[in-house]
Amino acid sequence: MEITRQNFKESLSTVYSAVEEADFLAIDGEFSGISDGPSVSALTNGMDTPEERYGKLRKHSMDFLLFQFGLCTFRYDQTQAKYLTKSFNFYIFPKPFSRTSPDIKFICQSSSIDFLASQGFDFNKVFRSGIPYLNQEEESQLREQYEEKRNQMNGSGTPSYISPSSGKAAVNVPDEHKDFISRVVEKVEALLSNSEKTVDLEPCSGFQRKLIYQTLNWKFPKGLHIETVETEKKERFIQVSKVDEEERRRMEQQKQEREQEELNDAVGFSRVVHAISKSGKLVVGHNMLLDVMHTIHQFYCPLPEELEDFKEVTMCVFPRLLDTKLMASTQPFKDLITNTSLAELEKQLKEKPFKAPKVDCCEGFQCYDTASEQLHEAGYDAYITGLCFISMANYLGTFLTPPKPHISARSKLIEPFYNKLFLMRVIDIPYLNISGPDLQPKRDHVLYVTFPKEWKTSDLYQLFSAFGNIQVSWIDDTSAFVSLSQVEQVQIAMNTSQYAESYRIQTYAEYMQSKHKHTHTNRKWGEDGWANTSYRSVTGKRSISPTQEDQSSDFSGVADSNWSHYSKKIKTDAGASGGGVQTYAEAVDSTTGSWLKAQPEKGAASQEASGSEEADAWPKLPTNQNQGSQPTSTGLFDVPQVW
Amino acid sequence: MEITRQNFKESLSTVYSAVEEADFLAIDGEFSGISDGPSVSALTNGMDTPEERYGKLRKHSMDFLLFQFGLCTFRYDQTQAKYLTKSFNFYIFPKPFSRTSPDIKFICQSSSIDFLASQGFDFNKVFRSGIPYLNQEEESQLREQYEEKRNQMNGSGTPSYISPSSGKAAVNVPDEHKDFISRVVEKVEALLSNSEKTVDLEPCSGFQRKLIYQTLNWKFPKGLHIETVETEKKERFIQVSKVDEEERRRMEQQKQEREQEELNDAVGFSRVVHAISKSGKLVVGHNMLLDVMHTIHQFYCPLPEELEDFKEVTMCVFPRLLDTKLMASTQPFKDLITNTSLAELEKQLKEKPFKAPKVDCCEGFQCYDTASEQLHEAGYDAYITGLCFISMANYLGTFLTPPKPHISARSKLIEPFYNKLFLMRVIDIPYLNISGPDLQPKRDHVLYVTFPKEWKTSDLYQLFSAFGNIQVSWIDDTSAFVSLSQVEQVQIAMNTSQYAESYRIQTYAEYMQSKHKHTHTNRKWGEDGWANTSYRSVTGKRSISPTQEDQSSDFSGVADSNWSHYSKKIKTDAGASGGGVQTYAEAVDSTTGSWLKAQPEKGAASQEASGSEEADAWPKLPTNQNQGSQPTSTGLFDVPQVW
Repeated sequence: MEITRQNFKESLSTVYSAVEEADFLAIDGEFSGISDGPSVSALTNGMDTPEERYGKLRKHSMDFLLFQFGLCTFRYDQTQAKYLTKSFNFYIFPKPFSRTSPDIKFICQSSSIDFLASQGFDFNKVFRSGIPYLNQEEESQLREQYEEKRNQMNGSGTPSYISPSSGKAAVNVPDEHKDFISRVVEKVEALLSNSEKTVDLEPCSGFQRKLIYQTLNWKFPKGLHIETVETEKKERFIQVSKVDEEERRRMEQQKQEREQEELNDAVGFSRVVHAISKSGKLVVGHNMLLDVMHTIHQFYCPLPEELEDFKEVTMCVFPRLLDTKLMASTQPFKDLITNTSLAELEKQLKEKPFKAPKVDCCEGFQCYDTASEQLHEAGYDAYITGLCFISMANYLGTFLTPPKPHISARSKLIEPFYNKLFLMRVIDIPYLNISGPDLQPKRDHVLYVTFPKEWKTSDLYQLFSAFGNIQVSWIDDTSAFVSLSQVEQVQIAMNTSQYAESYRIQTYAEYMQSKHKHTHTNRKWGEDGWANTSYRSVTGKRSISPTQEDQSSDFSGVADSNWSHYSKKIKTDAGASGGGVQTYAEAVDSTTGSWLKAQPEKGAASQEASGSEEADAWPKLPTNQNQGSQPTSTGLFDVPQVW
Repeated sequence: MEITRQNFKESLSTVYSAVEEADFLAIDGEFSGISDGPSVSALTNGMDTPEERYGKLRKHSMDFLLFQFGLCTFRYDQTQAKYLTKSFNFYIFPKPFSRTSPDIKFICQSSSIDFLASQGFDFNKVFRSGIPYLNQEEESQLREQYEEKRNQMNGSGTPSYISPSSGKAAVNVPDEHKDFISRVVEKVEALLSNSEKTVDLEPCSGFQRKLIYQTLNWKFPKGLHIETVETEKKERFIQVSKVDEEERRRMEQQKQEREQEELNDAVGFSRVVHAISKSGKLVVGHNMLLDVMHTIHQFYCPLPEELEDFKEVTMCVFPRLLDTKLMASTQPFKDLITNTSLAELEKQLKEKPFKAPKVDCCEGFQCYDTASEQLHEAGYDAYITGLCFISMANYLGTFLTPPKPHISARSKLIEPFYNKLFLMRVIDIPYLNISGPDLQPKRDHVLYVTFPKEWKTSDLYQLFSAFGNIQVSWIDDTSAFVSLSQVEQVQIAMNTSQYAESYRIQTYAEYMQSKHKHTHTNRKWGEDGWANTSYRSVTGKRSISPTQEDQSSDFSGVADSNWSHYSKKIKTDAGASGGGVQTYAEAVDSTTGSWLKAQPEKGAASQEASGSEEADAWPKLPTNQNQGSQPTSTGLFDVPQVW
């Protein structure tokens, strides 16, 4: 369903009920650009810390406009044993709704615009018919404006400051307006003594209208209703009506209702995001970090500076998130899926060992055909993101005994994937953990190298040719991180470089220390290979401390071990870029035994088996809202209850 | 004629010849926004100096995109006694033409986009089919890239730096690529000994292609032509052909021609601007300062920081500019024209005492009908801007004896309006003088007032109520310039304010001094009411020094007197905002006698009368290129030669 400014109001109840009845929601956004600073490759360094990455995205990506928002709701129909979908494609544009409303500026990136144009994106629909919106602060400002105006018009406004013109008389009319105001008073006096019901004053300036309101409220505290009316030519004039008290109250109320409607219109698309948020439903997206950041930034509040605050806000707005790109990059999917881009993922998840989900579109809604791709239409992308989620969730059900063909979005089997948003191109941190502390790999095999600006990747390969495979993460023209495959080589490299003139080498720890000397408190590395942070104190009875069991393995294996944190076997994936090798099933085997083959006994697993109780309650959320103050049983290192 | 990426190349010769044959050109641009900083009213303070205004526009307006460029060429046909027009509407978009080309980011302002959308502007045409462009630096960078690549491929490239991999062998192939390169060499050796003409190598990375070029050029310096080819899937591979020397040279030349064409395509719309520039023709625009700034910024070079440098660049790019808004705001038009907005101006210039110009569109070109407005389509706006210019120019001819119905764009009657670009909302400086020093009104009747942020304009009126009419130019929430109507009142106001607590008053001179203390050399005010600047030394035999003959008049009169600088009679225009009251005819009367009724004797005036010699030579240009170093006869205060 395509929703623009023209049909937004009439469609809102349809959207609300679709969200209300859904089992889960899928979203996708299209933006006017990605990075307004460095190129995307420079923006996303492979050795970024989560804080750095968040900071970069916040700084360089939030001035773009989210101008198409796709929402696809999925409701599981037990009797038909299939999902029913309703997909919405919202066009969004911050059309200024009045002369005093914010005049948003946004950046367009030529490559992004060109890409969308080549996909047939309809920019005219965005700019001519986009739905407006306000964030929460703008909404309350506007509400206050309305109230202030109402108070002023009722004569109940109190001056909030001392100005040269105040305190001299009830209404201080500047000399040049005195004649004008006298004529108005005469007209109103005439109205009160004749048989007319209303009188229209001549169009005048905002300042004059204010004087009229003040004067009339002061001179005629009762018996009048005063209202500003706009002509077709957008000229504003005041209409004065004779009314009794009851009529006056009724008219005031009507006016208030009109104002409320104006306010609602201005809040616009944000109301849809509020509804999604309030529903508390699982919100699925593909590579969704930017979607989440933009959605919060545009429709809630400017993003906070600190990552921790962002996590808190995100958990308030979207208490349950799931990123299908992260899920597909995690075991048991990782070994089966070669390409996690949305279009390729959707194709692979129709083939064995996966099954294409049974899905039907609801009556009156667009039925997308995945055979004829409509990629990069947000509604379509949201739709196939939902399909991917269903396929992967159902695949998890095949490990149950007996296997279950349908796994609900509320299943505890899904929980390990909650609130972990895929981090693009970070070598050893696969996701941002929204509801807990982030992974902090030690990086003691990483070197920070500076060199002349003419150097290319091949020069670095040459330089480190004695150390076997290396991985280069460019920072800028003259510096890069170089990951060696073995920690032992670091000291050798450092020694070798001592007398070098053209380049310089620091260990990662040295680099971070000098970088953060003045901005951050230094972190100490614990003996277990993890940084000591306040998060480490968050423990629960089920928590398992990660242990670094195989430090001699290659670096990407170390990362994986950190990430999956129940893995014993370290995968060797030397030279491949990007981390994300999780050993989900193996890991489970090694820590809690062969649960996948075991009978489910209680809790969510039994819910799955009975297939009955899943409609109402969502599994308890891991939250970071009381982080640090109270220990919870859902810290990062907890094994989810189902294990 | 609508010109997009699709028909640009085939239309270019049409554009070139239209420019070539034209008597004058009219241009107009549509932008994605106006101000990315303060609101337009804050951006354009009524007391801005020309330097300040330029600085603000440069800082806050250049990140928008000029995405539609209107060009209308006007050629006067003597036999038909009418103008023949060709109008072009160019859609412009910086589509990145390769992976290494600049990825332009531009800002959109919601209110501007919304306005254009409401006028039916076709954004899809811009983003899907806009013509690309490069500025001069980007063009030469790209040219260098091509040359470098060519040198590299010919093996004639010399390494410009010392890298670890250089100096060891003719081609240093990293270990991991050695096998790959050997296989390539084997294939080429096979080619040389068999009867095939060419061999296609397998697709590979850019780095590998570089190694192949280097290796083959080194091993087989003769007899091969090597070229990178792209498959339909955008995969790149290398094609090696056996050739004799002649064939090789021919293929090289073809390749070079293809590269030149690619380069031309990338330079794109800038070629049109270059053609306009090279023609040296009069370029007419309406309120054209932003159009000129954007055109230079986008298609030539980033705007210089200093106004003087901008003037110099502008005179190089557009040696003859004329702003119809400035012309219409100047006598003898000012008294006859009540509204100088383009649409209104065009209407008024069809009515008496003006005459609608006789104009016809050339065959194959769009004939705009001014009865059905297509305002804010750049081609249409350029067209009616040209109409306005013709009407006003011809009106000047009615003052000649005998009156002339047609005044050429090359007439010296037009010269006083050259290179003076309308300054929006500056009270006492009506234009930016591109080819000379700017007007510098003394502003000794102006006060700089600071006050609590709650104050409104009415509070300022109240504060200064004893001083008669004032004019308020807001700077920000807590400060404004207040212009008193009489200089004598300044001291009284200063005295009165001494003990004030809530507000503070400085004279304009004090304010400017404290503002520029550290950034500018102080200016001294001469006794004649003009700042002493280096420009004042530019005098010529015909120059007339301005004199401040009536200081007691109201401020806008003072400004007018400064501006028209031959006026004796000061017009009183108290309270009206904006300056620009020139007394063109009166002024002429008072300085050079009643020339308008006199017989033209020689020079341009006689050209006008004979109507013969006007086709070839443009009148000598006032330029500021040798300003300061040599006295010229065309300084600011010169009376144009026709007087």
